[in-house]
Amino acid sequence: MFRPLLTLTGGLIAALAVTAAQAKPLSPEDLSVAEVLRDRALESSDAYSIVESLTVEVGPRPAGSEGDRRAVAWAQQKMKALGFDRVYTEQIEVPRWNRGHAHARVVAPFPQPLVVTSLGYSVGTPQGGITAEIVEFADVEALIKAPARKVKGKIAFINKRMERARTGEGYGPAVGGRSKGMRAAAEKGAAALMIRSVGTDSDRFAHTGMMSIDGVENPVPALALSAPDANLLEAMLKRGKPVEVQLDVHNQRLEDGPSFNVIGEITGREKPQEVMIIGAHLDSWDEGTGALDDGAGVAVVMEAARMIAELPQRPRRTLRVVLFGAEEIGLVGAKQYVDAHRSELDNIVAVSESDFGAGKIWRFDTRLPENKFDIADQMMQLLAPLGIERGNNKSSGGPDSSVFVAQGVPAFGLYQDGSDYFDYHHTPNDTLDKVDADTLKQNVAAWVVMSFLAVEMEGDLGRVPTEH
Amino acid sequence: MFRPLLTLTGGLIAALAVTAAQAKPLSPEDLSVAEVLRDRALESSDAYSIVESLTVEVGPRPAGSEGDRRAVAWAQQKMKALGFDRVYTEQIEVPRWNRGHAHARVVAPFPQPLVVTSLGYSVGTPQGGITAEIVEFADVEALIKAPARKVKGKIAFINKRMERARTGEGYGPAVGGRSKGMRAAAEKGAAALMIRSVGTDSDRFAHTGMMSIDGVENPVPALALSAPDANLLEAMLKRGKPVEVQLDVHNQRLEDGPSFNVIGEITGREKPQEVMIIGAHLDSWDEGTGALDDGAGVAVVMEAARMIAELPQRPRRTLRVVLFGAEEIGLVGAKQYVDAHRSELDNIVAVSESDFGAGKIWRFDTRLPENKFDIADQMMQLLAPLGIERGNNKSSGGPDSSVFVAQGVPAFGLYQDGSDYFDYHHTPNDTLDKVDADTLKQNVAAWVVMSFLAVEMEGDLGRVPTEH
Repeated sequence: MFRPLLTLTGGLIAALAVTAAQAKPLSPEDLSVAEVLRDRALESSDAYSIVESLTVEVGPRPAGSEGDRRAVAWAQQKMKALGFDRVYTEQIEVPRWNRGHAHARVVAPFPQPLVVTSLGYSVGTPQGGITAEIVEFADVEALIKAPARKVKGKIAFINKRMERARTGEGYGPAVGGRSKGMRAAAEKGAAALMIRSVGTDSDRFAHTGMMSIDGVENPVPALALSAPDANLLEAMLKRGKPVEVQLDVHNQRLEDGPSFNVIGEITGREKPQEVMIIGAHLDSWDEGTGALDDGAGVAVVMEAARMIAELPQRPRRTLRVVLFGAEEIGLVGAKQYVDAHRSELDNIVAVSESDFGAGKIWRFDTRLPENKFDIADQMMQLLAPLGIERGNNKSSGGPDSSVFVAQGVPAFGLYQDGSDYFDYHHTPNDTLDKVDADTLKQNVAAWVVMSFLAVEMEGDLGRVPTEH
Repeated sequence: MFRPLLTLTGGLIAALAVTAAQAKPLSPEDLSVAEVLRDRALESSDAYSIVESLTVEVGPRPAGSEGDRRAVAWAQQKMKALGFDRVYTEQIEVPRWNRGHAHARVVAPFPQPLVVTSLGYSVGTPQGGITAEIVEFADVEALIKAPARKVKGKIAFINKRMERARTGEGYGPAVGGRSKGMRAAAEKGAAALMIRSVGTDSDRFAHTGMMSIDGVENPVPALALSAPDANLLEAMLKRGKPVEVQLDVHNQRLEDGPSFNVIGEITGREKPQEVMIIGAHLDSWDEGTGALDDGAGVAVVMEAARMIAELPQRPRRTLRVVLFGAEEIGLVGAKQYVDAHRSELDNIVAVSESDFGAGKIWRFDTRLPENKFDIADQMMQLLAPLGIERGNNKSSGGPDSSVFVAQGVPAFGLYQDGSDYFDYHHTPNDTLDKVDADTLKQNVAAWVVMSFLAVEMEGDLGRVPTEH
């Protein structure tokens, strides 16, 4: 399923052997190798086959589930087949939950069914379901400010729309209803929470996702409505009569159980203890096949590492691909990774994650000490021809990477076009057909440039002061 | 919710009173009135409010259901509010069916769930479901040709893709799997039928729709897969191992029961017994709110008639809006209408139906005797500025209209752009947000021109020889 081994010309092999003492952190020879890797990636990288394999042979893989277990086995097998030097897992402990059914229907004044989905780790309704009146709020802040008497016994409906943007910046202002709404509703004695899905589509898919549940004393069922269904409730409410909705929700909270971070390494030839981590997350939500979130990311970082593994010699440092477990339910795998490896964090020269779908990369962000910008400038020489512009120095490196960044680890961020990412995010519609094979090649090209240069460079990137 | 009554200038009122003896069937005065109606429609018609009302206040309305009953009440009330002279219903008898759940999952070699929906009037699985191997066919013809031993005990999977086209012409070649597949599968002893949805989207929606069930001795469960799920099965089958799927389907066939054609008339001032029928269908499938299929059509013909009802005088003939019942399950309302009114068919000067979504009208087809083309030419003078071109003389007038056309009734066809119609057709995603209010104004403008001129014209349209 994969291309023949990448081979370099004699001249470049010779160049690799030369260690020129340069003022700049990256030698012309390093840049030449990276350029060859980049152009090969555009021609012949095949990340698409990896995400195809994951979605077809594994599919949904929520943390701690059977699918997750199969994904962990798949990832180890695939990394071995791709030629990684070391492949291993590190166990983590995850809270587990099974989605049951979620049925909702308006019973008055205009009876009709609604398309909903439970938010992650929602409780169910009591046997026989509940029926209650809807009370609408513009956003989670309005719910938090509302007096309890307005909410008590009712279904709080947060009707906040998300704006579409290439950067995905509409997500932050909209996601509060999902993350904090249930807590606020429960504290005020609501019967349940319903939110307009945090998404940019106008399709009949509800978007699931995690919410804050720790310490909520009397949690209530929490559901997302598809955008057309939120429109429907809104239109009914505008007609001025009380709107009553019946909910019948069944979910199951399970005992905590094991999952795994799956790790594959290309071992460094000179400084094997110094490591660049490139990551993605292996878990997905349960309703789609996790093609965009985050099968594409898994594929891009694995394929970039595979190309580096095929060079005639190992890079100076170790390239470590970490496929994090349980990202969707709160960066669980990344947090446990950092906890378990706290004493070794100084050896992680940089971290970066691909977890924003399968769109074209258009911007290169960093989080570097100010005296290390020259390496980013050199990387940009090879990234710019891919249509990538230089961004800012505030990158989190991606969701899981942010846990490392909080400890001062430098980060790189290859920012994808996320214009349509939130059309599919956390829905059943996150499937392989949304992934474009050619765009993935551009992604691999950028990742292989960045990864190779970070593991091959002279010197290191220091630490970045953390904000407190 | 509606605009102020349309009023005409004094000059046009005077013009209306003149009966000029013309060689052409439509007088300049008629054309002037139609032009005013057209331009008012573009400015101020409000079909959108009607489809909004139907989808919000009624929603899904499958034939013979509670929703259907509410839709019939809604339609009568709405027609009265819009100023129709006569509003009445005609009872029809319809087969009834309730959709239950339809769960499908691959159990081997790669366990994961599939998104499916039952085809209309499908039987369920036995208690506990069934598990069987998939056998794939390129199209229904391949299934029909296959030896029974290849199919017996297996789930026949028809994997035929539908092509996108403005005319919707991809539907015909693809729909055979849905309409004839279950019969073929049952005759060969298959355990069940699964088809790739007859649709043009790549979203995780399965498309339901009617199939031929009469006289099938041992019907088997019949399901549609969403396009991404059909891709998934296809990809698994390509890997060469047997693919086993578990189905758990529950549906309920009910006794036949009543539904209704709902009829509203603007009574003709000179020849009230001569009638132009403009139609749409009131029923919908059960999973969406029937905004495109056929709420938009209902709204367009009702709004066109409303505008004509607001003229200072009634048109020469009667304009009859017929909202047919039970179209989706086999043109049941239209067939029973024609049966009940067989002796009056000669009084129906023409028929036309709006039932192809909410896209812009781009073509004007007819089914007229050859010596009556001049009226279509005159209509085209007013339709062309709406971006409408002259089409052919083979129009069926629309699905329900075709039953009249089969009896020699002339027909008009205002053909909508159906490029995205089959993205939503018969899915839960057929909702109001897919309807554009401005495009509906263009639709009303064309319909009011055609309808007014047909009821106001000199002479009649004769009969069209039927093909036998």
